[in-house]
Parts: sequence; C-alpha cells; structure tokens
Amino acid sequence: MDHFVRRGGELFAEDVSLTAIAEKFGTPTYVYSRATLERHARVLFEALEGVPHLVCYAIKANGNLAVLETLAQTGCGLDAVSGGELARALKVGVDPLRIIVSGVGKRDDEIEAALRAGVLYVSIESPAELEMVGAVATRLGVTARVSVRVNPEVDAVTHPYISTGLRENKFGVPYDEALALYARGMGMANVAMVGVTCHIGSQITTVGPFVDAAGKVADMARTLLAQKVPLAYVGIGGGLGIPYAATDNPPTPAEYGAALARALKPLGLTVVLEPGRVIVGNAGVLVTRVIRVKDGADRRFVIVDAGMNDLIRPALYKARHAIEKVVDGSDEASATVVGPVCESSDTFAHDVVLPRVVTGDLLVFRSAGAYGFVMSSNYNARPRAAEVLVDGGNPVLVRERESIADLWRGERSPAGRAYDDQLPKGFAP
Amino acid sequence: MDHFVRRGGELFAEDVSLTAIAEKFGTPTYVYSRATLERHARVLFEALEGVPHLVCYAIKANGNLAVLETLAQTGCGLDAVSGGELARALKVGVDPLRIIVSGVGKRDDEIEAALRAGVLYVSIESPAELEMVGAVATRLGVTARVSVRVNPEVDAVTHPYISTGLRENKFGVPYDEALALYARGMGMANVAMVGVTCHIGSQITTVGPFVDAAGKVADMARTLLAQKVPLAYVGIGGGLGIPYAATDNPPTPAEYGAALARALKPLGLTVVLEPGRVIVGNAGVLVTRVIRVKDGADRRFVIVDAGMNDLIRPALYKARHAIEKVVDGSDEASATVVGPVCESSDTFAHDVVLPRVVTGDLLVFRSAGAYGFVMSSNYNARPRAAEVLVDGGNPVLVRERESIADLWRGERSPAGRAYDDQLPKGFAP
Repeated sequence: MDHFVRRGGELFAEDVSLTAIAEKFGTPTYVYSRATLERHARVLFEALEGVPHLVCYAIKANGNLAVLETLAQTGCGLDAVSGGELARALKVGVDPLRIIVSGVGKRDDEIEAALRAGVLYVSIESPAELEMVGAVATRLGVTARVSVRVNPEVDAVTHPYISTGLRENKFGVPYDEALALYARGMGMANVAMVGVTCHIGSQITTVGPFVDAAGKVADMARTLLAQKVPLAYVGIGGGLGIPYAATDNPPTPAEYGAALARALKPLGLTVVLEPGRVIVGNAGVLVTRVIRVKDGADRRFVIVDAGMNDLIRPALYKARHAIEKVVDGSDEASATVVGPVCESSDTFAHDVVLPRVVTGDLLVFRSAGAYGFVMSSNYNARPRAAEVLVDGGNPVLVRERESIADLWRGERSPAGRAYDDQLPKGFAP
Repeated sequence: MDHFVRRGGELFAEDVSLTAIAEKFGTPTYVYSRATLERHARVLFEALEGVPHLVCYAIKANGNLAVLETLAQTGCGLDAVSGGELARALKVGVDPLRIIVSGVGKRDDEIEAALRAGVLYVSIESPAELEMVGAVATRLGVTARVSVRVNPEVDAVTHPYISTGLRENKFGVPYDEALALYARGMGMANVAMVGVTCHIGSQITTVGPFVDAAGKVADMARTLLAQKVPLAYVGIGGGLGIPYAATDNPPTPAEYGAALARALKPLGLTVVLEPGRVIVGNAGVLVTRVIRVKDGADRRFVIVDAGMNDLIRPALYKARHAIEKVVDGSDEASATVVGPVCESSDTFAHDVVLPRVVTGDLLVFRSAGAYGFVMSSNYNARPRAAEVLVDGGNPVLVRERESIADLWRGERSPAGRAYDDQLPKGFAP
C-alpha cells in the first residue's frame, strides 16, 4: 500500500499533486512519500511483534539523508555496506548501536571508521576479513563486535544479478567453514563474536527461501550457543519482493515476519532484518515530462526527459516499472516509452498501453523509490534529477537538481588549470 | 596501438608507471594516455586524406574536459548529444562551427543553446523536432543549420543495446520519409537543410555495415542534391569496434576510412564522422587495488576496490575487459575478479587466469577509456574515481576523486535544513 493516489483525475503524492511538484521543481524528479515510508517500516515492526528485533534499513536501496532521517525517526536502524553509507548513517544522527556494517569488500579504512564509530556489529565475509578486523581493533584498542555472514546455499529464485546466497556467489562464508571462523574469533583478544547473519538476494517473491535460510541460520546459531559463543543477534538479510506490476503478488510483510518469527523466536536472540526495497520501493515515483512523440517505422515512441542515467533498472535488470499519465486521459494506444540517451537500452517500456500523450504531458514511473536515484549517473552529460519528500501537503526539496556546471566540478585542463563554473554563451544561468 | 606498455616487469602509461600513479592519486583511478588519444585521432584523419572531412569526437564516450581539450587541439571537432555535452564542448573553447548536435530527445532549451552558440548543424530525428528547431530559430531570429538523421535500416551486428540503425530502434527518420522532411525544411524560413547523416550503432567489428550505410546515405544525398537541397555535409555515425580481447580483430581505421571514402568522395561533400570509442577506448585504463583474496566454496575471488559503480560495462553489456596485474607475477591461477558492491552483477571477470595476487596488489582493466567514467555512479555511496591524463612523464589529475562529503551535496533534511560537509566522527578528513 502506498500514498500515491488519484484524486479528481490526477495522481497525487499524499496531498500534493505531481503536476504541482513538476511545476515547482522541474523534471525529472524523484518523489517520495513520508507516510508510505513510515507505514512500510511499521508493518515490519508489527510483523515481528513479540520477538526482540531491530529493523536495519538497507541504505543501498535509497541513501538520501532525508529518507534515512525519516526512517530513523520511525524506529529503524540502518545497514551500511560502505564507508560512504556509514557516513550517511552517522550524518543523520543515528545511534551507532543501531547501525550494522556489511559488505563483501570492506577496506581497512572502512573497518576503522566502523570501529571508531562503535557500530552494533561488523558482519564479516571471509577469514582474511576477520583477521583484518581483529588487527584494526587491536590497533585502535577497542573490542570489535563481529557477526559472520554465512552463506546458506539457498536459491532465492530471483534475477541472477541480485541473487547472493548461492555457492557460486562472492558473498558470505561457506556454511561448513563458519564454525571454524567462530572458533578463530573466540580466540582473538579484541573481537566479540556476537552475531550470525545471512543474505540470500533481493526482490524475492516467495516466503520459502527465507524460511529455508532462517532454518539453516537457526541451526547454526543453536550449535554456536551450545559451544558458548556469546551470540546476541541473528540476522536475516535478503530483500522481500515488492509488486512492480498489478499481477505481482509477493508475500506480505506480515507473512514474511511470521515465517521468520516461527523459525527464530525460539533462539531467544534479537532478530536483525536488513530490508531495503520493501520499505522504500513503492514509497517513490519518478516524474518525467514528454519531450516529443515520434512515429517510427513500426511503432510510436514517447520520448521523455528521464533517461537510463536517471533510472537504470530497465536496462540493467530488464525491470519494468508501471508507467502512468499523471493527468487522466483517453484514446488509449500502444507506445514505446524511451529516454533521450543515445542507446537503444534507454527504453523504459516496449509497447505499453497509455492514454494519448503530447509534448509537455507528465508521466510517472511507479515503484522507483529503491535502486533509482542511488544508481543514477551523469551519462550523456545529464545532470542528476531532483529528489522531493512529500509530508502531507508539504513537498520538501531533499536534493537539489544538479546544474550543468556541477558536471565538471573537480575537472582540470591538461595543463592542470581548474575550470570555473561559468556556463558558456547560449546557456541560461 | 596504445601507449600502455610493460617496462622492467611493470605496466606504464607512457613514461609513468601505474604504480606511481596509484601511490600519488589513490585507487580506483582512470588513467588516459595523451599520446594514444592523439594517435587515434590522427589515424582517422589520415584514413580520410584526400576527402574533405571533419572528425567530430563523440563526447558521450568520455567527456572529461581535458580529454576534449586534447582532442580539439589535435584537430577534432565534437559531437554533443545533450545540453550538458554542448556546454562541455564550448567550455574547452572549441569553435562552434566544429560542433554538431545530435540526440533523439532534444529539449527546447537544448535546441536554443545550440542555435545561440551557432553550431555547425543540428541533426534532427523527427518531423516534430524539425518544427521545434524552426520555431526556436524564428524566435531567436537566426537560421538553423539542420541535417536529418536518416535510419539506413542496416544491421550493425553488435550488442542490441548499442545497435541504433534498425527499423525498430528509436533513432533516426525512416529512410522513405526523409525526402518529405527535406521538402518541409526547404519551405521553412529560418532553416537551412545542410546535411544528411546516419548512425548504425557502436562497437561494430566489420566494415560491411558501414559500407552499406554509406551507400544508402550517398544515394539519399544524390537525390537531395538533384532536388537542389544545399547539402554540404554527409555524416556517418556509428562507432568502429575496438579490440577488447587479444583475439578481437576489428577493421583498422585505415580500412574503415578507405571504405567510407570510396562510397562518399564522389559526392563532393564534407564527410563528418562521429567516432568515440575508437579514439578513447584503448587510450584509457582503470587502475584498482586488491582489497582481499577470498576462497569461496567453488572458486577464488579477487575483491578489488573498483566496483560496478565505477565501470558498469561488464554488468550492463556483459562486456569483458582484459585484466592484468600491474607488476609482473608468477604462479598463474584461475580467479574471479569482483568489486565490493553488494550485487552479484559486480563481477568483472569469471575464472580468468592471473598471476598470484595478494591484498594491496594493483590490477588494471584495459580498454576502459570509453563508457567508463562517464557512466559511473555513487551506487553503494561510493565516491567516484579520480581521472589522470598522462603526457609523457607528466601525470595530471584531470578530475579529483570525489570525497565522502560530496555524496550528500545538495541534500536537505525533511525539515529543509541543509547538511554541512563535516564528516562524522571516526572518518579521516
């Protein structure tokens, strides 16, 4: 459920029309709904009622500071997979004991920043990384709280790019090598082995893989507790799928939470979740304006001012975002919706049915809150989009649109001369 | 041919070792060779000797201002596909009469900027766009020089994402509708129909499709000239392939130029090329450092500090960049080279043979000069890489590495409060 609804023939974000947002802030613009973010977080909290839990929102899905601040105020912790994400988490003032640090390739300086900040735990993914965490902790004179990301060898049945829990994936520690890693950690002076975690992938649309993974991790936790490992946390990573199309029917957060609670509650540990997409995916849309309608040899193209640089999911994952006209229309016909970038991959939808559109009309890509802006680039020298967070009747610009002069910030000539930020003749300031 | 060569067991960019560059500027860093850029441009000039020509380097492949300045000094014009690229072209002081403007979705403000600057021509892609160019020219009181991008309906036999000349692609004007468009343009007061162009795709590895396209465009040009259209330019877009692997054997620029000259010289027009990758692709490498070597259940992973956010071609196009150890090594073995980003798609090479590597070793991705940095993002909150241009023994930092505080530039809290650029506790300044 989200708060993007039609009123009087027009799509609104909460109490603000998307037309008004496009007029005020321009296009393309990502629009997020605060009420939807809060609702999605609360549904997860409720699903885990009766089980000690910490819902660490996965920053990688959408790291905008206003989104993080909103979710932190709602009661979420945060999951950071890089130094940059950790900095974002700390920047919004989240208690470090509500931050976990994950990631398959943590650098020495990133581990140091995590230990200096005093995060809840660092999830390690290899013996070499455990040694590095131990060494940094010793150097800093602190105790590193560590969990091991175990590879549960569960097939998440999702796109291979976002499947992470298979034997052949780069992530995690092989299940049958994990016990030795805990034994090694127990012998290290500046390390406390406080958790066991796993991650099986993203956009998972059945409960089964989570149940399988939770069962395996619970078995591991029981073995570790019997061996006096001071476990306090059991983490289930892997993202619940969201409906991108009307026919998609993933499990509800309540079903997901209930399944996890059944498997994990008997352990008596704090359950840590790392949801990203399920919280923010349907809490965001991308608003774009039609530049031109073009009749090709075989089909009608609707060319919009958002491109693959703004939303790369269709090109990268063959993802399909539902597309709607912001203002109701008639005369439905088939159209192929494309961006202005010079690649055939810059296509958002092939032959979808849309009301008749003309230059200047607004369209919206639904379910664009996750893996949208965070993956955007300046490809084709396109400034990145604005981001707006709507709270009731109040649209707040939470990231300014980039300017053309922003494109060459930090560049220098072959002679090492800096370029100023003046626009060339012919460009509006 | 490029200027990345081994000397004394170590890979150099011209006269500077990549080890020295990594130590001075950090990793990951894109490194470009000035001599290679110049050489690749000159080879194209020579291939077209005897035919009036303008080689308009396609900015989209690599828009760094220092690269543009280098190529402009060498004698290239520039091809811009957006307002941002046009601004980049003008920023380095290129004569507007050496700039062409292309693109399937030009906005009104972008057309205005092009006409105000006085570019050589704007290549239009639909009847609606011709009307828009005419309207803007009338409003500004200038004459718009226009070419039509004709779709030659030639199969370029390349990756479907970068094939552009087929009937089903969004680009160009259908061949059999182009004559009507010229007739329309000839009747417009503020429009001069000066060119005919086409584009068939990128990374094309045989001469045949170019010959076919040039033949079709030449036929069109002859018809137009007979109808008294004041053509001065004939443009052949579409990028010649480059060798990414030792076994790749694309045509040489000389073969390509000779084929085009045969088809186009008799027209007596200026031939305009729009090469990107063939100039800059093998003039750049991406230098990265090994974070960790990890033995998975089935294979050895080498985790490097460059990620799919830095170089997305392997994930997006299933491209394979040759990977080398910067300093010679021994004990060759199979390894899967991955980045630190939390996706299985962040994999640069599966099971390649590399000398033994350990944490801290430098690797290099070859042929990373085109569609490398320009497509990079901040995904996983990772600051974008530095760019260095080497000229003989002189490495110049032509784009600073982004800082962590750069990541939230322009962001604001839900209350609309700006965030300062102070790093949180625990982070090195």
